[in-house]
Amino acid sequence: MGMTIAEKIIAAAAGVDSVKPGDIHTVKLDRLMSNDGTTHLTVDMYNNKLKNPHIADTSKLVFIVDHNVPSDSPKTAASQKKMRDFAKEHNIDFWEGKGVCHQVMIENYVRPGELIFGADSHTCSYGALGAFGTGVGCTDFLYGMVTGTSWVLVPESVKFNLTGKLPEGVYARDLILTIIGEIGANGCNYQAMEFTGEGAKTLSISDRMALCNMAVEAGAKTGIFEADEKAIEYLKEHGREPKAVYHSDPDAVYAREYTFDLSKVRPVVAKPDFVDNVVPAEEACGIEINEAFLGSCNNGRIEDLRVGAEIIKGKKVAEGVRFLVVPASQTIYRQALKEGLIDTFMEAGAIVMNPNCSVCWGSCQGVIGENEVLISTGTRNFKGRAGHPSSKVYLGSAATVTASAITGKIALASEV
Amino acid sequence: MGMTIAEKIIAAAAGVDSVKPGDIHTVKLDRLMSNDGTTHLTVDMYNNKLKNPHIADTSKLVFIVDHNVPSDSPKTAASQKKMRDFAKEHNIDFWEGKGVCHQVMIENYVRPGELIFGADSHTCSYGALGAFGTGVGCTDFLYGMVTGTSWVLVPESVKFNLTGKLPEGVYARDLILTIIGEIGANGCNYQAMEFTGEGAKTLSISDRMALCNMAVEAGAKTGIFEADEKAIEYLKEHGREPKAVYHSDPDAVYAREYTFDLSKVRPVVAKPDFVDNVVPAEEACGIEINEAFLGSCNNGRIEDLRVGAEIIKGKKVAEGVRFLVVPASQTIYRQALKEGLIDTFMEAGAIVMNPNCSVCWGSCQGVIGENEVLISTGTRNFKGRAGHPSSKVYLGSAATVTASAITGKIALASEV
Repeated sequence: MGMTIAEKIIAAAAGVDSVKPGDIHTVKLDRLMSNDGTTHLTVDMYNNKLKNPHIADTSKLVFIVDHNVPSDSPKTAASQKKMRDFAKEHNIDFWEGKGVCHQVMIENYVRPGELIFGADSHTCSYGALGAFGTGVGCTDFLYGMVTGTSWVLVPESVKFNLTGKLPEGVYARDLILTIIGEIGANGCNYQAMEFTGEGAKTLSISDRMALCNMAVEAGAKTGIFEADEKAIEYLKEHGREPKAVYHSDPDAVYAREYTFDLSKVRPVVAKPDFVDNVVPAEEACGIEINEAFLGSCNNGRIEDLRVGAEIIKGKKVAEGVRFLVVPASQTIYRQALKEGLIDTFMEAGAIVMNPNCSVCWGSCQGVIGENEVLISTGTRNFKGRAGHPSSKVYLGSAATVTASAITGKIALASEV
Repeated sequence: MGMTIAEKIIAAAAGVDSVKPGDIHTVKLDRLMSNDGTTHLTVDMYNNKLKNPHIADTSKLVFIVDHNVPSDSPKTAASQKKMRDFAKEHNIDFWEGKGVCHQVMIENYVRPGELIFGADSHTCSYGALGAFGTGVGCTDFLYGMVTGTSWVLVPESVKFNLTGKLPEGVYARDLILTIIGEIGANGCNYQAMEFTGEGAKTLSISDRMALCNMAVEAGAKTGIFEADEKAIEYLKEHGREPKAVYHSDPDAVYAREYTFDLSKVRPVVAKPDFVDNVVPAEEACGIEINEAFLGSCNNGRIEDLRVGAEIIKGKKVAEGVRFLVVPASQTIYRQALKEGLIDTFMEAGAIVMNPNCSVCWGSCQGVIGENEVLISTGTRNFKGRAGHPSSKVYLGSAATVTASAITGKIALASEV
């Protein structure tokens, strides 16, 4: 029986010839990533709960401070210090203030064919480069850190045949929201979403990240693309080689198959308080906003900043609206500097922040108040995600968010 | 009897020919500035406590959101919304995310000869342009807002004769710390510090802001310079004219006089937990730091960023140290962009933030944890000012702060 990409990665990590959905396998992890959301808890357990604390292979660990950067309270400062000190003591790769963890991982670590655990739900992003990335809690992270292994219940795969090409003014962000809107927030519970077909090939690595990143919002264990020439080219540019490039076998078994014609996708918006509450953007147009957010691991890449800058150039942020622009990494920020995008945003009245999770995480930057409304390129719009429980978050593309920042109401980029 | 500049400004604002220290006068205010530290309280009182709420002259009011930008909690978001809505309703000049209030005021409003009340203690900064600026609480602010007037107990003036010229590698920041170290934190309680002499003329407007800004740290009501050609030139560049240019009379009376030879000033550091705990920087060298902060209304101007960038160019921030660079205004930020300074800082590993009060205010950005050490160009180093009560803040110049960020220990710029 044939296998899917996801299954092949697990089989390799398990050191077996084949796996099938429902199997449980012990796997060797290629990489473990943890951020300041929970690393201090992992460190506490490591120091206080283990009889024989040790790390299987420090070279496989990456610690990234990205959630509260720079620290917003003595408490987070202490947590981050714990993480920093531990990384130094154990010679663990440590990143601070350099970007959102998943962006840093894609830019610097992820290789096709790898199995990566991350102590963050959006670790599924790594499928953009043909890796199997998945989020775990800090206890599972600790086990992986100590043993270098973990276990995986092999997920079923679901095939998303993508055909056609996204029209001008429509983005991967619209596509993934459309998909989640259609299949629902539980649409792929504990399954691997495989994006394939001719349409998949048209998508950039940034687009693929936007898609894989939100796989977890459909309940998926991961999202994954085949590592094609674009992925290999991206790796080359970043000085890396694939671990292994897998293709799904023609006779691989899928739990379900969907076909999405990219040419038919239109700008959409996910309304509060659920990611799958998706409507055509027109239906949300006119809703007054207090804040707009362009950033996050989902949509804070140079391509997204270019889209926003192009739209806002020569225009102004609406009076009374905060427009937060937060490049997803310092590499992206510096590229945006070079291209003049940062100045364009500032001239328009945006608040350009240091790379970090910002209001997508809703903890310390751009937090919104009672009854306030945010339109965001972030990952989630759950109740209270960006601040006060009564506040509302709409999700849209970089284009829709920027257009909304200009008009002060949810708006289509084609209309500003 | 002759009058000092400060006295002449008060006399004009009181509509009388002369005033003397100890007099109480009702004065007409030229400008009132309030930031997000307390404006929501002013608005609450205005809405709930006044029988006949009204504003004497909205054109004199300026509201500036600079302390928690962007908002870090639903509570601050609500306070800022109150401020934003009130400003809109009453057509009050409103700035958000554009910079630290005093920098925004100097760039856009302050004119020589004006009497300005600000609901922030460092309002004394405006003396850099020959204005009398002073900090008030929100109740006094409310009274001024409603009536357009307030009262002033005329302060004595203290003359600071500045001679000579600052040596290369020594900055106005070192000078004002030296002065405060010498006269003490109560050295000019409720007095006006007048900076004058040939040495004063050598100082840039940015230098003068650094001096006047910290007058309050010596207990002073204000700090002030005569508006000379440099001040007039600065105003011209910013499209403004003086209200009135005052000179202190030859027979003006001073409570005391000091002479400081600028050529003898050396890099200094104010040790925890008091601004007047000043020692030669050498004596603090070697103290390990966790964070370095280059920014604030005291020392976050383009001149300071140039100093820092020059020192750090081609070097790296020490491992484990956070180096926060926070331009004092968006105008400064954009100038720094043009000059390539932002990229230089980022390349070195600094976290470059949006213009705001940042860790000088110690509330939401760069807050330090238990026993952590910060070296800062900020205004204060009181216990807990930057975070945990056990943390320590050292104050130094942009040069000293940057050198310390590179070495991870308090260091002289001449030694990195």
